[in-house]
Parts: sequence; C-alpha cells; structure tokens
Amino acid sequence: MEQIVYLNGALVPRSQARISPFDLGFLYGYGLFETMRAYSGLIFRLGIHMERLRRSAALIGLPLEALDLGKACYDTLKANNLADGRIRLTVSIGEGEATPNPPKHPRPTALVIAASYTPPSAKTYQKGYKAVVSLIHQNSQSPLSRLKTVNYLNQLLARREAKEKGADEAILLNESGLLCEGSTNNIFLVSKGNLTTPDEESGCLPGITRQVVIELAKELGLKVAEREVRLEELLNADEAFLTSSLIELMPLTEVNGKPIGESKRGKVTERLMSAYKEAVVKETKQGA
Amino acid sequence: MEQIVYLNGALVPRSQARISPFDLGFLYGYGLFETMRAYSGLIFRLGIHMERLRRSAALIGLPLEALDLGKACYDTLKANNLADGRIRLTVSIGEGEATPNPPKHPRPTALVIAASYTPPSAKTYQKGYKAVVSLIHQNSQSPLSRLKTVNYLNQLLARREAKEKGADEAILLNESGLLCEGSTNNIFLVSKGNLTTPDEESGCLPGITRQVVIELAKELGLKVAEREVRLEELLNADEAFLTSSLIELMPLTEVNGKPIGESKRGKVTERLMSAYKEAVVKETKQGA
Repeated sequence: MEQIVYLNGALVPRSQARISPFDLGFLYGYGLFETMRAYSGLIFRLGIHMERLRRSAALIGLPLEALDLGKACYDTLKANNLADGRIRLTVSIGEGEATPNPPKHPRPTALVIAASYTPPSAKTYQKGYKAVVSLIHQNSQSPLSRLKTVNYLNQLLARREAKEKGADEAILLNESGLLCEGSTNNIFLVSKGNLTTPDEESGCLPGITRQVVIELAKELGLKVAEREVRLEELLNADEAFLTSSLIELMPLTEVNGKPIGESKRGKVTERLMSAYKEAVVKETKQGA
Repeated sequence: MEQIVYLNGALVPRSQARISPFDLGFLYGYGLFETMRAYSGLIFRLGIHMERLRRSAALIGLPLEALDLGKACYDTLKANNLADGRIRLTVSIGEGEATPNPPKHPRPTALVIAASYTPPSAKTYQKGYKAVVSLIHQNSQSPLSRLKTVNYLNQLLARREAKEKGADEAILLNESGLLCEGSTNNIFLVSKGNLTTPDEESGCLPGITRQVVIELAKELGLKVAEREVRLEELLNADEAFLTSSLIELMPLTEVNGKPIGESKRGKVTERLMSAYKEAVVKETKQGA
C-alpha cells in the first residue's frame, strides 16, 4: 500500500501530495517541525510536542490556531495502519512571493508523515554511540537555536562529517566552545551519579525527551544540573548519553576516539533507559 | 498573463508548478539560491552567480552537473516577456525520506522565478537607509554563513525586527560582536576616501555585488580593505552603503538612531553608484 500523508486537511497518497514551490518553507526555510514516536497506537507526549510547536510558531509569526494538528497526526498514523512508528509534523508559513517578506495573510502548509521505524539494534544500545566533535558550531545568539526549524542544514552537514569520520554522531559546541547538543539529539553527562546537561542558554534545542529524562531522573532521586558545560567535562564524565524522541536514550561511549568512563553503557544510563521504557508502557496502557 | 516558472526542465504556469513535500529543501532546508537582476535582457553577472552556486553545491553535496541553469534563467525571463526584472534561482537536493539523511542518488529540484522589479525610489537612494543592529547574530563558525542557503529564517527574523523598530534594514554582527552584513546585503564603510568591508572570515556572504563594487573601487583608485570590522568603526565612518544584486548600492545614513557621517549620501558612495550603473550599461550593450 502506498504511504498516505496528511497535507493541509486531506489524507492523500504520497505520490499525489504536492505543494507550491512558492512555499516560503521551500524558498526561505520559513517552517518548523516535530519528530515523534508512536507506541501501540499512542503518540508519546504529543501534547508537549504540540505545545513547543505552538510556542515556536508564535515566535516566528506562523499562525496555527485554526489547525488541529494532534488529530492530523493520529489520522495519518491510522491511515497507514501503523500502531508503532515515527511521525514527522512539518508546518511552514505557506505560499508567498519569492521575496524575503512574509505573506500578509499567511495560510500555513501543514504536513504529517507517518512511517514505520526500526530503532538501532540491541547491540548498538549495549555498545553505545561513538561521536566526534564537529567543526561546525551552533549559534546560541540566534533565537532559532531554541526552535526546531527546518533550517537544518548545519545539523545535516555535521552529521555527514561524523559519518565521514566513521562516527555515529556529531556533537556541536556553541560559538564559545561550550557543549551544546548532538546533531539530532540532546546530551547528558553522568558524574558521581548525578546528571548534567547544557542549559538552553548554551543554544541547545529544549528537547522533549530531554525534558522527560530530567523528570524521570528527579523521580529516581538524581540531581540534575542544567548549566554551561565544557567539553572537558564530557570527556571526564563517568557516563554520557544522547536523547531524542526516536532513539530515546542512547549511551555515548566514545568522543573523538577517547573513551567516556569505562567506554561502555553505564549503570545510571541503564536505570534511566529502563525508566523511560516504563514511562512509555505506563502511558500506553493509560491511553488504551 | 499568468507568471511562468521554470521547474525541473519545464516552463509551467505558476499555478501548475508543484513539488513534493518530501523535498528535502522543504523538510530540512537542504537547498541553495541566487538572486539576480536582469537589465535590458541581460542577466547581470550571471556567470559569477552560477560559479558561486556550483561551488556551494559541491560543498553541500548537491549534484548540479546535468543542469543548464543559466539557460533556464534566460528562458524564464523570456517566457514572462521580461527584459528587466529580478530572477530567483533555487536548487534543492530533491525528494528523499523524512529523515536527516541525504538521498543516495539525489535528483535535485531546480526552480527559476522571474518577476518584474521596482527598485527603491530615487528619493530613497538620495536619503539612504536607516538600519538597526539586530539582536540576532550571524555564526561565522558555520560553513553555511558563506553559502547562500535557503536556511534564511535568521535573516527574515532580523528583517522583521528592523521593520518593527521603524528601520529599513537590520545589520547582523557575528558571534564575536564584529560587523558581519545586512539581512539581505553586504556592508561597506568609507573612511578618508577608502573602503572597508568585513572579510569572509567574519561570516558574511561573499556577495556578487560586493565583489563587483570592490573591483570598481580599485579601478577608481580607491583602496579596499577586507578585514575584521568593529561596529564602532561603522558608527564613526564618513559614509556607508549596502550592496546586493537587487538594491545595487544603497547609502546607509543612520544606524541605531545615530547618523553616519553627515547623515546623507556621501561623495564616494555616489561615485561608486554611478560606476555600477555604468558597468551595467556597458555590459548590457556588449550583451546586445
């Protein structure tokens, strides 16, 4: 069966989904997105994703009030007979003129793509990711660093750099050389049993999974510090891991060829990985 | 007559021009663009625009070899019965999956839009632009700062900030607080009869009009320094102006409410504005 996508209110086969090339999302990157994961028919933390999207949309002048995007996500999932998978929601300011002025009366383009998702293997979750520090830096002095915009080429190029260097992931520092984030995820350090993660002022995306992990860690009685983090702290940490809606928590066991801690998945990381899985199961049952 | 656009080899009416929303230009900003101006049927410095585009495309892994984009620009101009106007050429890596991985065998999307262009009024060119220094900073530590990518939301937000503050243009500093560029143009200072402009290391786009102005200035016997420039130098300059293919040279007479020099179009700026007009006329005649 051909993939079905949601586009501006309609569910259509992928091959028939078409937008204008005058869409300012295409011409100027004037758009936002969310990546979510569905488990047993439940889109995990959909409400928080929608909240972040609407907050970001208000900041860049993208009117989303008229759209029921949460329903669109579920409709797309169901239209593709998926109970589990990944969901990508994209909204742009819609069609305009090919000039750097937003349309006076924007009619946003909304797109939902749902697809099956194969997580990294159990072996990968056991060994963890190897990362390199990218030559590309993130810019904490742009409001965009805190928004999930489609201006994503920096991250894609950092990712390419990592692959070329034989690594799984790229870590981006900010313009001051402070730790910021992975190319498509947030980063946590474990030292003496407690967590540290770069604060939003460092220029990282306020990730939803990052937020869930902070909550779970506190429930487990761990201290969590959100603050400026130096790269050396990462290299000297006992454990480290990356977070995103798709990979959930992924151990980070090597950076620039240097082992993190004992270069294997750590105990605190394991506890949080389990806690995340449990939270998913719990919410899935409540949702059912 | 409906506007005609060039899209992937065909000239089609705007209302029929459609792309897939799976285009990674739309999903991730994986694309580049050029803005050019046509005078009396000649696209000014088309060759240099194409050279920059191809150099940038090679850097981000966008294969353009098979496309005759110069011809596409002229064809679009003619299809719209335009001798004068603006041309926007956009290329993206084309359709892919909604994941942050470029397609293995990319088939780029190429779009050319030609439209009439009304320059700012003679009065505006006489009075010059008022600018504000944006709260948004440019990032010289990303390779993207030197490429004209569709990751343009930073610039659009800086432009919005300028309009909200009653200014004509926003000036972006880089992450170190050094002068970088205008939101859609480059910046030049005139001091004691000579020119200074931020170097590429400052994170500015290597503008085509910037390059033309540097050449013309040297022909006129002016010294041109490309180097790090502090904001204070701009505020203390005798004259300043902005450059882009569309506005050509626009006097900059006020920044953050403070006059630049005598707060009017300066003599050196005037000489260069004339020299640019003359270069256009000369090349138009040669092209005819």
